Amino acid sequence: MPDDQPYSMMTANLVRPVRVLHVSPEGISSRPDVAATEEPMEVRIDGEPFAVIMRTPGSDRELAAGFLFAERVILSAADIVGIERDADSRNVMDVRIVGARVRDLASRSDARRRVVMNSSCGLCGRVTIDSLRVEARDIVADWNISADVIGGLADALRRAQAVFNETGGLHAAGLFDRSGALEVVAEDVGRHNAVDKVIGRMLLEERLPLAESILFVSGRTSYEIVQKAYLAGIPVVGAVSAPSSLAVELAEDVGITLLGFVRGSAFNVYSHGHRLAH
Amino acid sequence: MPDDQPYSMMTANLVRPVRVLHVSPEGISSRPDVAATEEPMEVRIDGEPFAVIMRTPGSDRELAAGFLFAERVILSAADIVGIERDADSRNVMDVRIVGARVRDLASRSDARRRVVMNSSCGLCGRVTIDSLRVEARDIVADWNISADVIGGLADALRRAQAVFNETGGLHAAGLFDRSGALEVVAEDVGRHNAVDKVIGRMLLEERLPLAESILFVSGRTSYEIVQKAYLAGIPVVGAVSAPSSLAVELAEDVGITLLGFVRGSAFNVYSHGHRLAH
Repeated sequence: MPDDQPYSMMTANLVRPVRVLHVSPEGISSRPDVAATEEPMEVRIDGEPFAVIMRTPGSDRELAAGFLFAERVILSAADIVGIERDADSRNVMDVRIVGARVRDLASRSDARRRVVMNSSCGLCGRVTIDSLRVEARDIVADWNISADVIGGLADALRRAQAVFNETGGLHAAGLFDRSGALEVVAEDVGRHNAVDKVIGRMLLEERLPLAESILFVSGRTSYEIVQKAYLAGIPVVGAVSAPSSLAVELAEDVGITLLGFVRGSAFNVYSHGHRLAH
Repeated sequence: MPDDQPYSMMTANLVRPVRVLHVSPEGISSRPDVAATEEPMEVRIDGEPFAVIMRTPGSDRELAAGFLFAERVILSAADIVGIERDADSRNVMDVRIVGARVRDLASRSDARRRVVMNSSCGLCGRVTIDSLRVEARDIVADWNISADVIGGLADALRRAQAVFNETGGLHAAGLFDRSGALEVVAEDVGRHNAVDKVIGRMLLEERLPLAESILFVSGRTSYEIVQKAYLAGIPVVGAVSAPSSLAVELAEDVGITLLGFVRGSAFNVYSHGHRLAH
């Protein structure tokens, strides 16, 4: 590793092309854009599925090693016999580890976490989406949403958040009705938690599916955020920042209108723009 | 739920007081600040530990319900018999679910993920930190870092990132040497993945512990980010944005200098300011 040049794990696959509708007071235009690549990666230990990580492809060997180190499955490079990509799937990494260490791990009572996934998942984004779609029905809400309503979402969430958030360290999620009125809002250090809290609230009130609702989040939208919306039956998902490639793909597949970079009266529509009122 | 008032799950416990050293060209001052509260919550199903979630306390019933819904353990409110907080710990929620549904879940071959945690974890941040500390030695690196070096980290990371990142949807993590030279950099849709990639790279090169390194991340620092640095032996962790309360607590405990809001020549020091060169 030369002193003057960092080892970069950034690759050309970091982003994928997407087509967006850009909406602003000046009008609507269709334009090419890019989204950060998100794909599942299955980590196997000696051929056995151990975990699936949603990640940006590239440096998969390093990710597998670093992940297993953080999980305390391995304690050093000496615990690794080899790391190989599966011959049948670019998204499966098999880590062969030293036998003694495996047995040690299995017997340790303080093993902090074991994540077990079944092997039908994690081969590629396509398989992941197909596997999810057996869980719920595609979304067919036929109402429209106006640019004005969308334009108000970020501000309304920020106003609700501003009362309490002095730190810049909290994510917010809000559930809005069709007219843009904020119904439920939650903040959390975890993006997923904030969404789980608002959906959990509605679930406990027996108000699912949320076919008349808009989910709006303060940060980015990953596959998992769109997945949560889909399972809850929410037809419109928006965010202040960017969606991942797999978030766009899932939204497109299941019938969700996905909005990104929603800032005031300008925003991008990544899927199902037919819900935009003219 | 009245129409004009959203149901807010934000509570007074969203933030905790912390003491920071604020460093800027004008000098150094000690001042009170706040950090977003992060605490583990253990979700039990019929008394059996199922998962531990790092979260901001508040709306724990809703979080437990929403989490189990997203995990497909429950499909509706009808699957829940009751949700109760454990009598001995405010951070343990026991969800009693309808028997038929549990059996159904256990037999489903497409159950996407089961997260199993042992019960020694997750009672409170204190227990979580104590349980982690048996995994590694406290950090005792005795070198100093100057405000000038710190001031250059964010720019260096952004420069490395700017070449590829056109989306705003990627997190970056960089590993710097003591002089502020960037050694390894990775980008990923997942914050944790970017850190796992840079640490995994060094692990595979047999360069752990990283006692002469600085980890710098583009976003926020959670407990898990500091945990990864601690296990890798990294004495200085910095971020463009805010740390969580548990990140600060862990850094303080294990000897890590934690920096936040590192923007140009101004930044906050949350722990072990003794490493700041004068």
